[in-house]
Amino acid sequence: MEDHAAPSLSGLLEAAIYVDDLNAAERFYNGVLGLPVVLRRDGAHVFFRAGNTIVLAFRPEITQAQTTDGPLPVPPHGAQGQGHICFTADGAMLDAWRERLEDAGFGIEADFAWPNGARSVYVRDPAGNSVEFAEPRLWEIAE
Amino acid sequence: MEDHAAPSLSGLLEAAIYVDDLNAAERFYNGVLGLPVVLRRDGAHVFFRAGNTIVLAFRPEITQAQTTDGPLPVPPHGAQGQGHICFTADGAMLDAWRERLEDAGFGIEADFAWPNGARSVYVRDPAGNSVEFAEPRLWEIAE
Repeated sequence: MEDHAAPSLSGLLEAAIYVDDLNAAERFYNGVLGLPVVLRRDGAHVFFRAGNTIVLAFRPEITQAQTTDGPLPVPPHGAQGQGHICFTADGAMLDAWRERLEDAGFGIEADFAWPNGARSVYVRDPAGNSVEFAEPRLWEIAE
Repeated sequence: MEDHAAPSLSGLLEAAIYVDDLNAAERFYNGVLGLPVVLRRDGAHVFFRAGNTIVLAFRPEITQAQTTDGPLPVPPHGAQGQGHICFTADGAMLDAWRERLEDAGFGIEADFAWPNGARSVYVRDPAGNSVEFAEPRLWEIAE
C-alpha cells in the first residue's frame, strides 16, 4: 500500500449495545435518559438519538443471525457480556443526572474525578451495560 | 419519580469495542483509519480519537477483572463476540475509503444504500468487529 493519508473521520455516528429486553432498554434510554426513539423493530432492536449520534440497542441473537444476501445486506454482529458507552455530559448537570438516575432506581456505581479533573458518573442499564456520563474535557474536548 | 424532563445529552463521547490483540487494533484504527492514539496501556487497552469522540479498544479479560475499590474506581465491563461501531463518513469519500481499506487487506463486506439513499460501507476490524462508514443523512444528520 502506498502511504497515502487516510481521509479524515469526523467522529462516531453510532455505537451498539446488546440487550435482552427492548422494553427495558426503552424505559432507560428514552424514559430516564430522555433520548428520542428513532427506530424500533419489535423483537430485534431499538435505536435512540443522542445529539448527532445514535445508540443502537440490539438483541444479539437476532443480529448474529442476519445475512448479507438480502436487499439490505447488513453484516452480522452481536456480543454477550457487559458493554460500555459514554455520553458527553455538562459537568454542571452531573448532580442533576445523579438525582434523576437514583430517583428512577438506577443506583450510581461510581462517581469520581480523573487525574485531569474531569468527572465521570457511572450506572448500569437494565441489561447490565456500563453507562458513563463524562465531561468531555476528559479527552481535551470542549463542552 | 416526579416527571421532570431529563437534562439534555449532546451525544456519545465514547464507544467501547473488545479486541484480542492491541497491536492489530492499533494497526487498523491508527494505521489504516488514521485515528490518533490518545492512550495505550500495554496488555489492557488502546484508545483512539475520532473528531470529538473516542473509540475505546479493550481486552475484555482485563476490563472484566477491574474493581471499583481503587483510586480510579472504573466499573468492570467486557463482552465476547463481534461488536459494531459506525463512523460518520462524507459520502464523497466512500470510494476512497473502499480503496484504502482494500489496499490494506480489509475486504469490503457490504456496500449498499439504505431506503433513504444514505450509503454504508462495512469492513471487519482485526478482532472481527463490524465497522461501518455511513453518511450521516442516514439519520437525518447534516454532514
